[in-house]
Amino acid sequence: MIGGGVAPPGKLSDMRELYVIGIGAGDPQQVTVQAIKAMRKVDTFFVIGKGAEKQELVDVRTGILEEFLDRPYRIVEIADPPRERTPTDYSGVVGDWHDARSELLEAEFARVDGVGAILVWGDPSLYDSTLRVVDRVLARGLVRFDYQVIPGVTSAQALAARHRMVLHRVGEPVHVTTGRRLREEGLGDGSTLVMLDGECAFTQVPQEDVHIWWGAYLGMPDETLIEGPLGDVAEEIVRRRTKLRADKGWIMDIYLLRR
Amino acid sequence: MIGGGVAPPGKLSDMRELYVIGIGAGDPQQVTVQAIKAMRKVDTFFVIGKGAEKQELVDVRTGILEEFLDRPYRIVEIADPPRERTPTDYSGVVGDWHDARSELLEAEFARVDGVGAILVWGDPSLYDSTLRVVDRVLARGLVRFDYQVIPGVTSAQALAARHRMVLHRVGEPVHVTTGRRLREEGLGDGSTLVMLDGECAFTQVPQEDVHIWWGAYLGMPDETLIEGPLGDVAEEIVRRRTKLRADKGWIMDIYLLRR
Ligand SMILES: C[S@@+](CC[C@H](N)C(=O)[O-])C[C@H]1O[C@@H](n2cnc3c(N)ncnc32)[C@H](O)[C@@H]1O
Ligand SMILES: C[S@@+](CC[C@H](N)C(=O)[O-])C[C@H]1O[C@@H](n2cnc3c(N)ncnc32)[C@H](O)[C@@H]1O
Repeated sequence: MIGGGVAPPGKLSDMRELYVIGIGAGDPQQVTVQAIKAMRKVDTFFVIGKGAEKQELVDVRTGILEEFLDRPYRIVEIADPPRERTPTDYSGVVGDWHDARSELLEAEFARVDGVGAILVWGDPSLYDSTLRVVDRVLARGLVRFDYQVIPGVTSAQALAARHRMVLHRVGEPVHVTTGRRLREEGLGDGSTLVMLDGECAFTQVPQEDVHIWWGAYLGMPDETLIEGPLGDVAEEIVRRRTKLRADKGWIMDIYLLRR
Repeated sequence: MIGGGVAPPGKLSDMRELYVIGIGAGDPQQVTVQAIKAMRKVDTFFVIGKGAEKQELVDVRTGILEEFLDRPYRIVEIADPPRERTPTDYSGVVGDWHDARSELLEAEFARVDGVGAILVWGDPSLYDSTLRVVDRVLARGLVRFDYQVIPGVTSAQALAARHRMVLHRVGEPVHVTTGRRLREEGLGDGSTLVMLDGECAFTQVPQEDVHIWWGAYLGMPDETLIEGPLGDVAEEIVRRRTKLRADKGWIMDIYLLRR
């Protein structure tokens, strides 16, 4: 898998530095000044492919580069290794996939000079694998480099801003989780923010006295917001979501639930 | 409490629009392009006073205005109404305080023309009262205006970026809570992010097999990071925190705990 381009063990890569940069969750204007300044030092941007249907997500990134950069740069696209979609051993499969990704990245890192960067949707600390993959590259020790993370606005912040709401009640917690977990574990105490939900897990929780704030394609041209008592709006959300997803070929949505 | 400057009931304020703008959690360069564009439309910035010892927090805001604005603007400072510090009826006291704040803001809103803005530390959706206060002003209906929220980078994202870590394990949740709740409820499943902790509540959880990533004054000149097994570093964090707080007169810190 590792090709001839890989550095010998321990070689300090000619890539001196890597930036992992959060770019905000949809609106290119959500990029920070710090992110722009970092991008302006970059020679090579690594783009990990997501499949053709999400061209729009790639466009947000290239739009940012075109709008804010003032020097030439290279883009290296890296095809995503295949991943089992509904595995039984979830974290094992994810682990293998992180390994496969890190080997692809490692080979590219060994090949480039100067400063590299990976642009991450939203913020790198929230349901994104880039940092785990970079850590694996460093742990293998075949290439070495400095790296820095530049934080970004998350889709949780984008959702709250568009609904003009606070994520939790005064002094209460907010539980950030996935659709899969919501189905398995139900609502927690306080408020529950759900990401990565491919199957409308909100239809599986008891609807009484629960309010939902839902948003899809936040910050993008097709942004859609729905809010109300879960019992009143759940069906409408499922209907709109199904149609939007069919029309565009993909969807990204997030929501907050609160008793 | 409401002075003579208040608009008659239902009057559309001469303040046409209000922006509530997240400015990032310490580093002025964390401000987004969207925030800068909004600020450039603003005539009057409302600053809610925090007491002299936190002058540095006010300086981050004025630094942003000085660096990025290209037109004249006014700053209206609003003294914070007093608040009981260790109340027995927490949410009742907070509610009264939101009311007092909203009356002060209302009086100022009624007095200004054009576009107003409030700059919020981090993001307005996370442990910040601005949106609740603005909602109370609107609910009373004495002044009316449009308003928009511009999301910002939170201190959670800043913490994760400086430690180059992801907030949760693969597919697991992250629980965002306060020091008070951590003391009362202990660690949840997955990872626990603790904010607003004046009393080192991490010393109250069983330390075995728990890791902590701690950060104070993130993005600011006195930024301090400590990370390690809780049993090994808890004392060091308490010691550093006590000293930093004594030296500067105030501290702001946040941490992640994970089993
Ligand atoms: C792989 S995670 C990446 C999250 C990203 N790192 C962040 O900080 O928001 C993708 C999930 O984020 C949420 N998401 C990201 N961008 C979104 C957007 N513009 N609108 C709605 N949901 C979004 C959805 O829940 C989606 O399933
Ligand atoms: C009133 S809350 C405001 C949070 C803010 N809205 C945000 O999005 O980060 C203040 C708490 O945020 C955390 N915090 C904010 N800025 C911080 C910084 N620069 N360094 C460390 N902690 C910070 C601390 O836990 C502090 O007690």
